[in-house]
Order: sequence, then C-alpha cells, then structure tokens
Amino acid sequence: MTTEFTTISSLFGPGYREVEVGKIVVLAEQEPFEFDNGAKIKNIPVAYQTFGTLNANKSNAILVCHGLTGDQYAIGKHPVTGKEGWWECLIGPGKVLDTNRYFIIASNVIGGCMGSFGPKTINPDTNKPYGLAFPVVTIRDMVRAQALLLDYLGIETLFSVVGGSMGGMLTLGWAAEFPDRVFSCIPIATSVKHSAQNIAFHELGRQAIMADVDFHDGHYFDKRTFPVKGLSVARMAAHITYLSESALHRKFGRGLQNRENVSYGFEADFQVESYLRHQGASFVERFDPNSYFYITRAMDYFDLTSNGGLSSHFKKTKTRFCVISFSSDWLFPTSESREIVRALNGVGANVSFTEIQTDKGHDAFLLDVQEFRDMVSGFLLGAAVHRGLAS
Amino acid sequence: MTTEFTTISSLFGPGYREVEVGKIVVLAEQEPFEFDNGAKIKNIPVAYQTFGTLNANKSNAILVCHGLTGDQYAIGKHPVTGKEGWWECLIGPGKVLDTNRYFIIASNVIGGCMGSFGPKTINPDTNKPYGLAFPVVTIRDMVRAQALLLDYLGIETLFSVVGGSMGGMLTLGWAAEFPDRVFSCIPIATSVKHSAQNIAFHELGRQAIMADVDFHDGHYFDKRTFPVKGLSVARMAAHITYLSESALHRKFGRGLQNRENVSYGFEADFQVESYLRHQGASFVERFDPNSYFYITRAMDYFDLTSNGGLSSHFKKTKTRFCVISFSSDWLFPTSESREIVRALNGVGANVSFTEIQTDKGHDAFLLDVQEFRDMVSGFLLGAAVHRGLAS
Repeated sequence: MTTEFTTISSLFGPGYREVEVGKIVVLAEQEPFEFDNGAKIKNIPVAYQTFGTLNANKSNAILVCHGLTGDQYAIGKHPVTGKEGWWECLIGPGKVLDTNRYFIIASNVIGGCMGSFGPKTINPDTNKPYGLAFPVVTIRDMVRAQALLLDYLGIETLFSVVGGSMGGMLTLGWAAEFPDRVFSCIPIATSVKHSAQNIAFHELGRQAIMADVDFHDGHYFDKRTFPVKGLSVARMAAHITYLSESALHRKFGRGLQNRENVSYGFEADFQVESYLRHQGASFVERFDPNSYFYITRAMDYFDLTSNGGLSSHFKKTKTRFCVISFSSDWLFPTSESREIVRALNGVGANVSFTEIQTDKGHDAFLLDVQEFRDMVSGFLLGAAVHRGLAS
Repeated sequence: MTTEFTTISSLFGPGYREVEVGKIVVLAEQEPFEFDNGAKIKNIPVAYQTFGTLNANKSNAILVCHGLTGDQYAIGKHPVTGKEGWWECLIGPGKVLDTNRYFIIASNVIGGCMGSFGPKTINPDTNKPYGLAFPVVTIRDMVRAQALLLDYLGIETLFSVVGGSMGGMLTLGWAAEFPDRVFSCIPIATSVKHSAQNIAFHELGRQAIMADVDFHDGHYFDKRTFPVKGLSVARMAAHITYLSESALHRKFGRGLQNRENVSYGFEADFQVESYLRHQGASFVERFDPNSYFYITRAMDYFDLTSNGGLSSHFKKTKTRFCVISFSSDWLFPTSESREIVRALNGVGANVSFTEIQTDKGHDAFLLDVQEFRDMVSGFLLGAAVHRGLAS
C-alpha cells in the first residue's frame, strides 16, 4: 500500500506562507528506510514531477537530479517563487531532454524542503518538525530514496540519469549503487569527492546560519522566528562561488548601483553588492535553513574514493558515461572531472568527456550554453540508438 | 606642537581587555586632516613602530604597509596576541629588510584598531567611540596620514615603500600621490583596483557582521556587547580566500579532526572546518568589527584606473618598481599585477616583475617563500646601490 497525495502544502520563508508543493508519494510504508547513519524510519514522503510519457517497455525514463537548492520543479512555474524551472533550457518538447521522446522524472531529494522527507517534516513522535533531530542524510541515502520512487513508478532501468553539481554527485551515486539500473549517466560540473575548499565554503554557510540569533538550534518554527540574516549571508557566500571572476567582472565590474559616485558609506554602492543582497533576500523566501544544513552536509560527506577506491565502485560497469565540466568553474574545476574520467577509463568503462569553454563559472550548468546543449544532445542520441529509442 | 605617547591602551575582544598598543603620535594638531569624503578633523593619532636606525642624511627609510588586519607590529611580540609580527620572515638584522642597513617604519593605518585614528577612537563631541560615525577612509587618506607621520619623523624621501595585499595598494597609492617621496616601490599580491569578486567577498563579511544581533549598528561598545559570531564568520570567509585550493588540499584534504569516522552531525568533522572555526575564534580577540567595515571599504573604493586612467597617476615617475605576484593567488591573481606592469611600462617607468611559483595562495606574501625573499632582496640591493646605500 503506497500513499500518493496530489498536492500537499508546506511552510515557506519568514512569513510562514503555506504553499502547495505538488505531487508526493509516501514510500517505505512496509519496511523502514535505513539511513547510512543507522536510523530506520518508515513512511518517507518523496515529492516528484514527471514530464513526457513512459513508453510501453519503460525504457525511456530519464532521472534529472537537482543541485543544492533545486527541487522537482525542473520545468514549469515554481509554486513558491513563481519563476520558471531550473532546467527549462534543457527539458521540453524538442529540447535536449526531449519530452516527446523521453519520460523525465525530477524528485526533491530527501533532506530537502519542497515536500520530500526533510527537517521540515513533522516528527510523529513530537508532532513538531524534526529540525536538527532529522537524520543526517548522505548522497547514497538520496539515491536509494530515488530508487524507491522508481520502484513505485514501475521503472526498472533508467535510460539516463543526469545532473549538475550535487545532481552530478547523485548521478555518480546511482552508477555506483545501482549499476544495472543505469543505461547512461551524465555527471556535470561535479566531483567524486567534495574538496577541502568546498567543505570550507559549506561550513562558512552553516556557521553564518548558526550565528543568527533567530536560528534557535534549528527550532525556529517552534519559536515563530526565522534566521533571515544568517541564511541570506550563507546564500551570498555560495553565490560568489557559483560565478567565475570573469563573469562577475563582465556582469558588474566596478559599476555603481543607481549613483554617479561612491557614497562614502556602507550602502550597496556597487552593483555586485546590490546583486548579492538581492540573491540573499530572495533565497530566504524559498529555502529552509535546516535543509541547508542537511544538503550541504550530504555533499561534504560524499567521497567515492573511500572504501576500496574509486575503481571498485565502477568495476564491470556497463553504463555509458558522459562527463562534462566548464572551463571557468572553480567550485568543481575540470581537474575533478578528469579524476572521474581517469577512474572510469581505468575500469574500461564507456566514457566520453568534454570541458566546455565558457566564462560563466559553475552556474553554466543551469544556463543556456550552446556547446553544453550540443554535447548532452549528441551523447543522448548515440545512447538512444543503442537503447533502441532512436534510429 | 606634536603630542607623542609612548604607550596608550585600547580595548580588545568580547572581554574588553585593556591592552597597551605602543607608541602613538598625534598628527594634524594645527591644520585639520581632510578626508576624501570631505570630513576635516584635527588631532589624528597614528600608532607606529620603527626598527633599525635612520642614517645621517635620512635616505635609508623603508615604509612597510600592512594588509587588511595587520598593524604596526611587523616584527616583535604582538601586545594583543602575544604572537610574533606579521613580517618576521622578512624584517630583521641580516634579513631581506635588513634592520642593520635600513630604518624600517610600520604604522597602523587610519581606520585601524591598534591605536591609530579609527572607529574605536573616542569622538570628543560625544565622549563615545566614533563607531560608524567615523568618516569612511580611502587608501589615499591612509597614505596621506602616513605622509604626516614621515613629516613628523623628518623623513622627506622613502628609500622604499613595501607591502602586500592592501599594503600593496598603499605602496601604489604612495607612488601615485607622492612620486617625489618614493625612491622605490614594491607592490606585492595586489591590484590597481579592487575586483568585483573581491568587493563581493568584502560585502559578504560586512553582511555577516551586520547580521549579528550584538553588532547594534556599530554601537556594541555602548551596549557592552560584541558581535563575536558575525565577525568570526567574516573572518572565515576571508580566510578561505587567502589560501589556494591546492594549499587547502595539501594541508587538510578530507582529513577528519580527532576521529576515525564522520559523526553524521554538524560538529567539525573535517580538519578544515576545525581550522576555520579556530581562525574565526582567534580573530575576534584581536580585531575591531567596525574597523573591519572601514578597512574593507577602503580597499573596495581603491581604483587608480579612474580619474584620467592608470597612466596619468604614474606619468613622469622616477620611482623604481618591483611588482610581485604569486601563481596560486586567486584573490589578487597575476593578471592584476600584469595590469600594473603594463601601465608602468606604458609611461616608461623602471619596473621589474616576477610571478613567484607557489601553491600557498594569497597568504604567500606573509610566508617564508625563498624565491619571494630572493626577489625582494635582489631588487632592494640594486636600488640601494643607485641610492648610495650599498656599493
């Protein structure tokens, strides 16, 4: 017996707005879900969306995996922000991830805040949100929850799993955990292990949230507060890492914001300051501070090089890989993609690799970059021929 | 009439420790000091230290300029931290900045918090610290205050002005503002204008401090509070930028802190987290949050490319320049040093340039890097011969 809700509502932002977050299925109703940290919990809600139609032999499913603050709204109007989906440039009829040909699945990761099991979920033992009593989740936990969703949808094998940044970690997690369920895999702007610098930036964000007097050790919902300033600072820090130095220079340089001269004060004189403040302020309206802790931690813990080394995870893999990096991405630099490629080559896997030349930085995976689209499109077409989905 | 105090005490850290900060001279006692923002203020205290002996014709003076959070304790036991000076590796008898040969001057910049005129100074109009009512200072203001100090010391011309990071901006400010008072100039790991990315990181730090409920718009002394958490987060953010990705990897990698396995929690599992927390915690003991606002702002505003362009500042300069960058410095990358060199070459200046190969990042200018020492040493020796200080 699996419970499906067509819509469910959740609280967002400092105003505690109640917003319907779409379709949710409750998984692990019979057997508890076993987290990597040892917790065993039944009734795991997973929020998801699908686009396109599953074919008769269920061979055309593509799972798209979101980054740190993304969710199941890969395309379509987002119910919280009102903006378009985060991969609108790639997914749709006739687009690279063609909804006329493929059945696209996007789910909110567990630990997230758009309806999937996360720290905002009510803990049945206390009738309050879990908060920081929520189990620390891993990328592997997220992947295994997605696998339960596929079981529910009756899909044995994914034609492809695609994602950038943390989404790329999820794609690699899929290929490692369920090699037989992944025909092809497209890890983008990602790594097999989170670097020291990236852990440092995540720790900075968490410290910024914890420094906020309104955080209350994650019990802000109980206290009817919201760590607006701390979460905003965390987002600003992250946002700097998503852009390249040259993109910041091109976009803003030292341009002033609505003024002819500097103010000799601490207002947002520079456009880049105004931009960062805006990024921070809009983020708090849509994201849960506790989720920020859980998802950043899952990325920090990700390390496929431990426990027998990278090759052991991909030994005998039949999955076709397409690894993509962006030349100006300093958060997940090309060197980290090369490490993936080396490991895959080492086990004789079928792997292609491209570094896309762009000055757009890490964010490029969310942007409409022609060479990037062409690469994914070409790889998928080749794989589709092999899978009998195209001729 | 100039007032000199041999020692003066100031308050430090959340514990309001009273610490003697050394020698201070009160400048601009007759004529007010005119800030770039228009403020005119008399009685500007400047804290300084000297090392070595001024020669008879006063031709052997070297001004060393500190970075964002440095001060006049370039060498010797620091009265607040008890640690050694920030340029101990370069300054001393027989060292590159040889105190047997040169008269070294180090002063705390105005806007700072080690005794020079800054937001911690008591405003005579209110009998309280200036706080954010302190005038916004510029790099040019800092340079002109240093020039008053030189007047007081009876030094017309500096044999050299040397500094890294913000200190490098000060050296360039000196060469631009007082070309006839600077025989040689060594700008290290710096830029002629603060980049958009660097402004972004500074804004992030200021926002982190402002987010702290204990900041009280800069009136924490009045309220007997101290924005410990906010200042600590600001320092963590800055500290990430001082190290290169490869230095972080070499120092910490994904090493765990005093544990065999991850804790599945939000403690500092990783060494890099523990290191950052320590950096934040120790910084609040020695630095003033309001000063952090003023000094970061001075750097943000620095732009020698405006008002007639870079070449106009250095036209007809007779100063000998030695520009140095570090290959792994991503805060002030080599490309920014090349911009300085191009401008100086464009006006036919005497300029040498080296990019030092190191993985130590921006922090390299504070570290004992042999090639760096050799470069400064060689350049100074050549200049000393021309100045008649060596044969």
